[in-house]
Amino acid sequence: MSDGGAAIDDLALRARVEDLLLDYAHAIDDGALQAWPGFFTEDGRYKIQSRESYEAGLPMGVMTCEGAGMMRDRVLALETANIYEPHTYSHILGRPRLRRAADGTIRARSNFLVTRTMQEGRMDAFAAGKYLDRIAPQPNGALKFAERLVVLESRRIDILLVFPL
Amino acid sequence: MSDGGAAIDDLALRARVEDLLLDYAHAIDDGALQAWPGFFTEDGRYKIQSRESYEAGLPMGVMTCEGAGMMRDRVLALETANIYEPHTYSHILGRPRLRRAADGTIRARSNFLVTRTMQEGRMDAFAAGKYLDRIAPQPNGALKFAERLVVLESRRIDILLVFPL
Amino acid sequence: MSDGGAAIDDLALRARVEDLLLDYAHAIDDGALQAWPGFFTEDGRYKIQSRESYEAGLPMGVMTCEGAGMMRDRVLALETANIYEPHTYSHILGRPRLRRAADGTIRARSNFLVTRTMQEGRMDAFAAGKYLDRIAPQPNGALKFAERLVVLESRRIDILLVFPL
Repeated sequence: MSDGGAAIDDLALRARVEDLLLDYAHAIDDGALQAWPGFFTEDGRYKIQSRESYEAGLPMGVMTCEGAGMMRDRVLALETANIYEPHTYSHILGRPRLRRAADGTIRARSNFLVTRTMQEGRMDAFAAGKYLDRIAPQPNGALKFAERLVVLESRRIDILLVFPL
Repeated sequence: MSDGGAAIDDLALRARVEDLLLDYAHAIDDGALQAWPGFFTEDGRYKIQSRESYEAGLPMGVMTCEGAGMMRDRVLALETANIYEPHTYSHILGRPRLRRAADGTIRARSNFLVTRTMQEGRMDAFAAGKYLDRIAPQPNGALKFAERLVVLESRRIDILLVFPL
Repeated sequence: MSDGGAAIDDLALRARVEDLLLDYAHAIDDGALQAWPGFFTEDGRYKIQSRESYEAGLPMGVMTCEGAGMMRDRVLALETANIYEPHTYSHILGRPRLRRAADGTIRARSNFLVTRTMQEGRMDAFAAGKYLDRIAPQPNGALKFAERLVVLESRRIDILLVFPL
């Protein structure tokens, strides 16, 4: 990992981080969008970006949310104006590579592959890429995303990118 | 997970559960169908169901086996009347979310993606979905499936669904 | 696993093995080909073979490297004569099944699925298969591949197989 940091040898902490990543994916798979903002700190950041754009150091994302409030707005918009063709996601997550950053947060990098299934049954490998996360332990012991950057392999961003990844 | 239950913090137990899920997948990948019933308790249940049918609470499955005896019959039928086009599976499993149920069994939910390769080399993402398992520790310490429910994302069930998933 | 050997219950060792497999995949995903030979012992072996050929016990591989020197040569050739259409890989790895062999090395079997993305954005499930690894602990404590056999599900080997898998 290019962002350095100390290795994390604590297997119980690793298991908790992996459960966070997994619960997030399962919530999206279940269509439980209301749960999505709760995985982030109140000032948490979420951004989807193409790999090309990420590697060029460009700031713009395909989808960007600054703070859980903006995420809640987005969920509300999706639930009220659902003009999209119904579909579901199924996430497969790779093992995360973990590092402890100097500020006490945990950096995680993990690959993902999302299969999308349309209502009539058509299925495709919709999105492949990596999550680059900054995870912040909370005062109550819970783990939340301070930042989740979704880097998509393809710059062909499907116009059907409706749900968060 | 909606089925509740206590968290499982025992990392050695988790590793044994993950090896069970993995050995099952590798056995199917290897075409070792004879091994398949042995992953279940004698009264174990196996069912493949579409997500649509599962979420509607419908009982019918695409494939259902009540007990390891019915599974052995099915394997025998496959081995004697193999009228299908030869193909192989390759399973990719997601990390399982684990819970300890009140009855002492372990509940596991894990996503999967199965790539199917036909004899002449054609390859496709054949099945995506989740395993919902009830795993029962046996008197000899081994872990077996008391129930394995395979929930497929797509309701387009390919007529070439020959092997168990 | 058919190659026998003793189970590995050491979870810290398992984590180190999984990080090795992961770092290898991330390096290829990142296009950091220069790092590739360093994952192997100096006399390490690398071979890509179709499943059909592997199961028939045939010796020939689609790509074969005997020793890290041959790998460095291959990387150099790729970097100087890159006449291929630019593309990237994204690996999803399954959990490895681990065994300790009698000679002290670790045998690992893990499934993989590689999504390939071409420069213009086209994405496909490029390669599915399994890694059959022999991992040798080094005097300095590091883990390296003494042998990495890549068994591809499909015998349709794409002429665009440029990078190692």
